Amino acid sequence: MPKNAALILAAGKGTRMHSDKPKVLQTMLGEPMLACVLAALRPVFADDVWVVTGHRADMVQAAFPEVPHVLQEQQLGTGHALIQALPALTKAGCTHLLVVNGDAPLLSESLVRQFLAEAVGADLAFATIELDNPGAYGRVVRQGAEVRAIVEAKDYDPALYGPPTNEVNAGMYYCALDTVESLLPHLGNTNKSGEYYITDLVGLAVAEKYNVLGVRCGRDDGLMGVNSPLELERMEETLRSRRVRDLLTSGVIIHAADSVRVGLLAEVEPGVELTGPCEIYGCSRVLRGASVASHCVLRDSVVSSGAQIRSFSHLEGAQVGEGALVGPYARLRPGAVLEAESHVGNFVELKKARLGQGAKANHLSYLGDADIGAGSNIGAGTITCNYDGKNKHITKIGKHAFIGSNTALVAPVSVGDDALVGAGSVITMDVPAGELGIAREKQKNLPRRKN
Amino acid sequence: MPKNAALILAAGKGTRMHSDKPKVLQTMLGEPMLACVLAALRPVFADDVWVVTGHRADMVQAAFPEVPHVLQEQQLGTGHALIQALPALTKAGCTHLLVVNGDAPLLSESLVRQFLAEAVGADLAFATIELDNPGAYGRVVRQGAEVRAIVEAKDYDPALYGPPTNEVNAGMYYCALDTVESLLPHLGNTNKSGEYYITDLVGLAVAEKYNVLGVRCGRDDGLMGVNSPLELERMEETLRSRRVRDLLTSGVIIHAADSVRVGLLAEVEPGVELTGPCEIYGCSRVLRGASVASHCVLRDSVVSSGAQIRSFSHLEGAQVGEGALVGPYARLRPGAVLEAESHVGNFVELKKARLGQGAKANHLSYLGDADIGAGSNIGAGTITCNYDGKNKHITKIGKHAFIGSNTALVAPVSVGDDALVGAGSVITMDVPAGELGIAREKQKNLPRRKN
Amino acid sequence: MPKNAALILAAGKGTRMHSDKPKVLQTMLGEPMLACVLAALRPVFADDVWVVTGHRADMVQAAFPEVPHVLQEQQLGTGHALIQALPALTKAGCTHLLVVNGDAPLLSESLVRQFLAEAVGADLAFATIELDNPGAYGRVVRQGAEVRAIVEAKDYDPALYGPPTNEVNAGMYYCALDTVESLLPHLGNTNKSGEYYITDLVGLAVAEKYNVLGVRCGRDDGLMGVNSPLELERMEETLRSRRVRDLLTSGVIIHAADSVRVGLLAEVEPGVELTGPCEIYGCSRVLRGASVASHCVLRDSVVSSGAQIRSFSHLEGAQVGEGALVGPYARLRPGAVLEAESHVGNFVELKKARLGQGAKANHLSYLGDADIGAGSNIGAGTITCNYDGKNKHITKIGKHAFIGSNTALVAPVSVGDDALVGAGSVITMDVPAGELGIAREKQKNLPRRKN
Repeated sequence: MPKNAALILAAGKGTRMHSDKPKVLQTMLGEPMLACVLAALRPVFADDVWVVTGHRADMVQAAFPEVPHVLQEQQLGTGHALIQALPALTKAGCTHLLVVNGDAPLLSESLVRQFLAEAVGADLAFATIELDNPGAYGRVVRQGAEVRAIVEAKDYDPALYGPPTNEVNAGMYYCALDTVESLLPHLGNTNKSGEYYITDLVGLAVAEKYNVLGVRCGRDDGLMGVNSPLELERMEETLRSRRVRDLLTSGVIIHAADSVRVGLLAEVEPGVELTGPCEIYGCSRVLRGASVASHCVLRDSVVSSGAQIRSFSHLEGAQVGEGALVGPYARLRPGAVLEAESHVGNFVELKKARLGQGAKANHLSYLGDADIGAGSNIGAGTITCNYDGKNKHITKIGKHAFIGSNTALVAPVSVGDDALVGAGSVITMDVPAGELGIAREKQKNLPRRKN
Repeated sequence: MPKNAALILAAGKGTRMHSDKPKVLQTMLGEPMLACVLAALRPVFADDVWVVTGHRADMVQAAFPEVPHVLQEQQLGTGHALIQALPALTKAGCTHLLVVNGDAPLLSESLVRQFLAEAVGADLAFATIELDNPGAYGRVVRQGAEVRAIVEAKDYDPALYGPPTNEVNAGMYYCALDTVESLLPHLGNTNKSGEYYITDLVGLAVAEKYNVLGVRCGRDDGLMGVNSPLELERMEETLRSRRVRDLLTSGVIIHAADSVRVGLLAEVEPGVELTGPCEIYGCSRVLRGASVASHCVLRDSVVSSGAQIRSFSHLEGAQVGEGALVGPYARLRPGAVLEAESHVGNFVELKKARLGQGAKANHLSYLGDADIGAGSNIGAGTITCNYDGKNKHITKIGKHAFIGSNTALVAPVSVGDDALVGAGSVITMDVPAGELGIAREKQKNLPRRKN
Repeated sequence: MPKNAALILAAGKGTRMHSDKPKVLQTMLGEPMLACVLAALRPVFADDVWVVTGHRADMVQAAFPEVPHVLQEQQLGTGHALIQALPALTKAGCTHLLVVNGDAPLLSESLVRQFLAEAVGADLAFATIELDNPGAYGRVVRQGAEVRAIVEAKDYDPALYGPPTNEVNAGMYYCALDTVESLLPHLGNTNKSGEYYITDLVGLAVAEKYNVLGVRCGRDDGLMGVNSPLELERMEETLRSRRVRDLLTSGVIIHAADSVRVGLLAEVEPGVELTGPCEIYGCSRVLRGASVASHCVLRDSVVSSGAQIRSFSHLEGAQVGEGALVGPYARLRPGAVLEAESHVGNFVELKKARLGQGAKANHLSYLGDADIGAGSNIGAGTITCNYDGKNKHITKIGKHAFIGSNTALVAPVSVGDDALVGAGSVITMDVPAGELGIAREKQKNLPRRKN
């Protein structure tokens, strides 16, 4: 029984990026390029997607720990990468393999499916596209409809191959593993780079009378690779404007659309209102009737229906309940949970903190490792002292409590339901429900010393 | 004596906006579209502008309480809307009526005046525009110069009406109310939508030999309607770039002009300097010699000559005096009044608070319901505790007072002229002029317990 | 021995800018236009660059105190400016002079060098460019290759000068001072403006058989002047997009490149990652491996390798060490020094403050005139009370100290190595190394009065 898998080539350094990060970790709209490629492959191959790592393999593996990796210690070319991967793939029972580049972030599920639909049955198939300026891409040589070879641009000799066409190798392959195994021993590296090229398999397969197919994918840009900051910038802008246009068409109201950036994995429902500049990255979800104002950054956060994220807010790993008001200048860090109708105002930071239904923390506060009950009011300048230099501790505040301004709550500590804390207090002991906790010196007025 | 009025059709839901808000409340550069239409009509019709509401009429009425409304409970078409409005208009003494759509935010006073100038004298007149791609717009059928009818695109039969032209009905009408009254009883709804169309009045009026006029408005886009988020985005960008270009031409210095958004009602004087991205909405006024830096949001605020709004500032309903310095990261809420040469610095929020001439609140403070005298200095971390859980109270600070850092002022409370408040105090009693108020425990130094 | 100097004409008001600032102080990407011109001339002329000031000469001199100025009290034209400057230039030993306009911010060193290479040897040379729409520019009249005159557009008579060409005077001149001295007495002001024009020297020199050269500079826009906000906006965008493209090409990774603004004097190394909207102005340097996120403003700041500037941060005159983390919402003011691996978090302001290696100030703090040792932790809501209303004082914190939250440190004061300060304290006395300083009242819990 045939079993398909996909292999992503992600070992390259990307020298022209001048970066310590491997190229496939460079981001497009907040996602590593590799995540974009994975997102296109997952619906087709589920968990049977493998990655060949090499340059800074540790970083790639740390970023995608759930994806099986094959290490290519020396980067001796795409064919060499395939050689490294074969044993593991065979052991896993794979019979057929799709090979793609990890630096092609525009790859789409539909392009993969379209290619596979035509490639199935071939011993070796590869995708081709038409380019107005083929540049350095490998040229496809055909005899009639039959593929003869892929020839590097610089080696293309019209006397040998006929007048050049605009059809080039797009860098996506599909092959039967037993075919590849029979060919790999013949793959050489006697070229200028001294590398083993996967493209050379095509000529070898033709020579061996295998069924070789060049699948024409027209002018699709889904396989274009990113090799430099300039290419990354252009491709990211292409991706961005497509996404924004799709959202507009689906019924998202977007102001200043040119400056709105929505990541590949983020969801924005119809009936949401966005104003640029804003960024919505990661696995964020913004639900119908919510709004995100200008100058906001969201990552991995959920904004429920009717919630308003006001300007200059920064959300990471936060959950915002229905009808909640956030910002301006709110910082919600991972574990911030805002129940329905709660308010977080300006210069307020929440981290691992729950704000109960209708509770408010509107000004200049830090709430970390805290649980705050429904209807409570957190005064301006409230600080949860959650860190003692070694460990983090919990602050627990009940329902309908009132924390006076400029208060420090030294955790672990709790304030009961309906309790009151006097302004300017340092609360080190629990305040029972319904009581008033206070810790401050009495005021004195004195003649002012003239200095 | 003829009496003109204008009627804005604003009953539609705008299904393609996927929003709970009625379409005319969707905003363009911070203003509801209906406000844009009103702004074009007010100079011509003064208070004789009526609005037909329907879908979420409550929201429209709440947003524009000063405009007389006619409720169209069931939305049975534009002709039906007119039928609903007639009694009230007649009762108010109107004899002639301009009818426009509430979702045409590019409408300008000059277009209205140009149309009226040609329409006066006709029993029924309507505006027409030329479109390269007339799409679904109603086609104008003429015999020579004479209008015969408006025909829906899908019903257009060249055999019947001759070769199609690019002249379409633009959706602005002018009519004598007695003409309309005589025709309305004949208006039918035997069409696919089962709605009563105002456009059908044209054919009826022609049949009755009324004087019907199709006023050619060329290629003016002032009557283009907004039916989807995509159309809203494009029209808003058109409006935005026109406005910014006009400001540049008038003598406003604008950096990063592509990301500057100035609302319809906002005024920016020549000699102002703006840097994008920034937003200036509502009835804001920025006066000659003032500057607004990047990443600022202003609404309904006045920035006087020589004042500087630095980056990341957020102003709503605030007044900034001459030469005042604001931000970065200043939040001025409604009722914030900054006298000349005063300073509001980073992470400072003002709400219903006056800062006297030359007074300073430069760091991490919340000043609500406060009145601060000239020359006073508000230390970092000062909080006015204006809310006791039930009511708001006033903090009053005199002239040349000095409020030490990290102070809580528990309102109602006052600090006199030239008074001093010690850092870290909770001030619960008034501090008389010239005295020092202090409320803090003495410091002890102890051996540090090793934990 | 010939001695070259350059003279920048910077006396004009720039009426169309509607601004109190003289035109040459209007900024392009954060730099005054005059700074752009100076940057093009300095590599060629070193310190021999002079500026003619006039309108608000005080402001120009204050902005560029190191540049020798010649005051043109009355602005009677470019020729008059030259007359004013001659005595000082002669006295300084200059024999040859390059004259350029101060409002030509696209001027480049290479254009200056190219012009000089051709101009050397001429008695009087001027640069010419070709314009598709020459507009009001002075037309160059030649006989064969020989220059005859520069004629104002409005005075151009084809009968006299032949069919007009597209070659215009670009406003850059090179002359032998003795030639100019012999011609200036003949320069008149009998024209509509009543001004003395430097361009009239050309005709005079030709008449006197001097060697006059019109150096063709093709279509270079490097000499285009800025006369209005609209021209400033366009030229700034030209400059901006060129710079961003150059950075991309050099290996800087830039997201949202259209909204990234990097000033003329700022350096960004390959391998840096920038995300727009962001601004990097002044003498800032961002080093390899550093990143600057969206919504940041940097001026005159250094960001070392591996440091991360997170969103909404505002840096002026700050130094950020290797691997340091800054923001979001960090404000670093002049004199902020962050040692390697230190952290400054949200709503934290530093001014003249050093944060030692690995030290942290993560939340809602104001640190002014402070020195903080390596590994110390500054709790949320910490305020250094550095100002007593008259003078600023120093706060000194040792290594590995722990400052509890909501603490006020009343300077001058010091906290020793490994010392601890209790949350909510007002520290007025030094805390010795290894001790605990605390200043707070004991907490009481009371029945809550129902109000």
